[in-house]
Amino acid sequence: MTENNLQTCTMLSLKKTAKLLKRNNNFIIVTHASPDGDTLGAGFSLFYALKMFNKRVKVVCPDQIPEKYRYFVSNTDMVSDEGAYIVAVDIADKALFGSLEERYGDRVNLCIDHHISNTKYAENLYLDADASATCEIIYELLKIMRVKINDIIAKALYTGIATDTGCFKYQNVTSKTHTIAAGLYQYNIKADEINRIMFDTKSRRLLELERMVLDTAEYPFDGKCMVLTVTSEMQEKTGCSGTELEKMAVLSRSVEGVICGVTIKQTDADTYKVSLRTYHPLNASEIGNKLGGGGHKAAAGATVKGELSEVRERILGVIGEAMEQANVGTTADK
Amino acid sequence: MTENNLQTCTMLSLKKTAKLLKRNNNFIIVTHASPDGDTLGAGFSLFYALKMFNKRVKVVCPDQIPEKYRYFVSNTDMVSDEGAYIVAVDIADKALFGSLEERYGDRVNLCIDHHISNTKYAENLYLDADASATCEIIYELLKIMRVKINDIIAKALYTGIATDTGCFKYQNVTSKTHTIAAGLYQYNIKADEINRIMFDTKSRRLLELERMVLDTAEYPFDGKCMVLTVTSEMQEKTGCSGTELEKMAVLSRSVEGVICGVTIKQTDADTYKVSLRTYHPLNASEIGNKLGGGGHKAAAGATVKGELSEVRERILGVIGEAMEQANVGTTADK
Repeated sequence: MTENNLQTCTMLSLKKTAKLLKRNNNFIIVTHASPDGDTLGAGFSLFYALKMFNKRVKVVCPDQIPEKYRYFVSNTDMVSDEGAYIVAVDIADKALFGSLEERYGDRVNLCIDHHISNTKYAENLYLDADASATCEIIYELLKIMRVKINDIIAKALYTGIATDTGCFKYQNVTSKTHTIAAGLYQYNIKADEINRIMFDTKSRRLLELERMVLDTAEYPFDGKCMVLTVTSEMQEKTGCSGTELEKMAVLSRSVEGVICGVTIKQTDADTYKVSLRTYHPLNASEIGNKLGGGGHKAAAGATVKGELSEVRERILGVIGEAMEQANVGTTADK
Repeated sequence: MTENNLQTCTMLSLKKTAKLLKRNNNFIIVTHASPDGDTLGAGFSLFYALKMFNKRVKVVCPDQIPEKYRYFVSNTDMVSDEGAYIVAVDIADKALFGSLEERYGDRVNLCIDHHISNTKYAENLYLDADASATCEIIYELLKIMRVKINDIIAKALYTGIATDTGCFKYQNVTSKTHTIAAGLYQYNIKADEINRIMFDTKSRRLLELERMVLDTAEYPFDGKCMVLTVTSEMQEKTGCSGTELEKMAVLSRSVEGVICGVTIKQTDADTYKVSLRTYHPLNASEIGNKLGGGGHKAAAGATVKGELSEVRERILGVIGEAMEQANVGTTADK
């Protein structure tokens, strides 16, 4: 295949997607940076499936694959870029190729994805934004390709669906999601073990960070608000970063009666990233806007500069106004 | 109906169960003490279903029904005990009738349950120990009775299945569980909202207890063991008790690399209840036995008397032996 700078992206049916896969022989399947269960589950289930058709298949990941996925990850083939058919799984945007963006970003032949935000960077795209996970799509694709699913494929697909849905907890779950899970339970997937690894185990440093952050918990506005603070010192002390820090925002809205969870995360000596999580009738987006940021109805954020105490006051001031406007009765206490 | 002290319990088919329900007219449905999502979901879905056949139905619960279930709980009919057909849902043993044991324990006409440990105290029993939840059974029962399931019935049934499976996470989940969930998603159940209430919200006092308990966390045996201590003072300060304290044992085995989670809970000035949670190759039951208690392979407990420091030393001594026997390499550090 020659390098291409594609202007148009062809939207495929699942049947056409299956045809393209059957027609080609040398594959490089690319998974996204900071790999999660869905991109890896999709990549490796497709790998095992294509191997049944005697294809040569390499799976590549821009970052190291975390140990916890080892039960379905395996060595793959040597396939040179030259002439290979490049497939991207669960990758909405070229930027998510990370360290592999330059190498593959502009020459993806087929993208299989479930993100409505997909930027159509590939030559061909199969997109199902109603699918809870890319692995939901791959399951259906394998059915069409008449692949005989086996235990390891089922484990990979289950992992992707479970991790992208918070174990069937989130709004993206549909009747079809459960139907597919029912199908995957026909195999020996040991789902309870998978779920324990994915959902009930955390690193000691994350637990340590949670402990420190909980020590900062405040409940202003009669407990309708929860404020957590994550200082640079805590981040350094525990070594937590990235997605681990994002989990604090989830924590901030996990308490009964709280309709506004606030996480104030230090990013610099006098710079704080504020994460807002709200429930009806509060609108996180409006609060975020007033703080110079933005976001969605239930989740928003902003960057606020100043001393921590000033930053805190400013945020609580804006939240107080929002509560007043939304007619949420509180005493003056904050 | 006259009072009966039944000697034998008739095991029913689901079809026969449906027939018995259709044949009777005045029902009292009993849910178990410390009600959970499954007993309430089963009780109320059966209530709504029987109302469609113009029956008179009362649902009773030995304890107050927690507020969080209000989206499917409703007022039920006035039905006098005299002549009523008594149905117990999700109740494995008469003792679980709690404050209602004397009133109904010996006169249950029909029990619908999924606990293998069911003591067969009822006149008739439909037992499916492979069902993840009693609500799984009720779903199938309603199909046989040709009940037109509606949104509130679907919400009640989903709640029971989700709560008894840790949102499809545990070992009791089967292909059928997911198939039923797929069926329930055909209705407007707003499962994500249910799941948020059931799984992602905790009381402030529980979070406060977690914070205090995490402050006590120790990781002896090179981090293969996690020890949490819950003092009487913490229990008094936070007001946490019962099932809330049990959640600490779950916390103790949630950290990566830990194969032995230990929770030492003070129950008296010099008495401590020890909860053990282990993973392969450690056997919690063996450790519990050596401490004068007992339990299962992965979860066991014991009551140990003495000063906290002595108690701790004794427990770690026994765990150290177990680790040695299981050939789990650790340094001498504890």
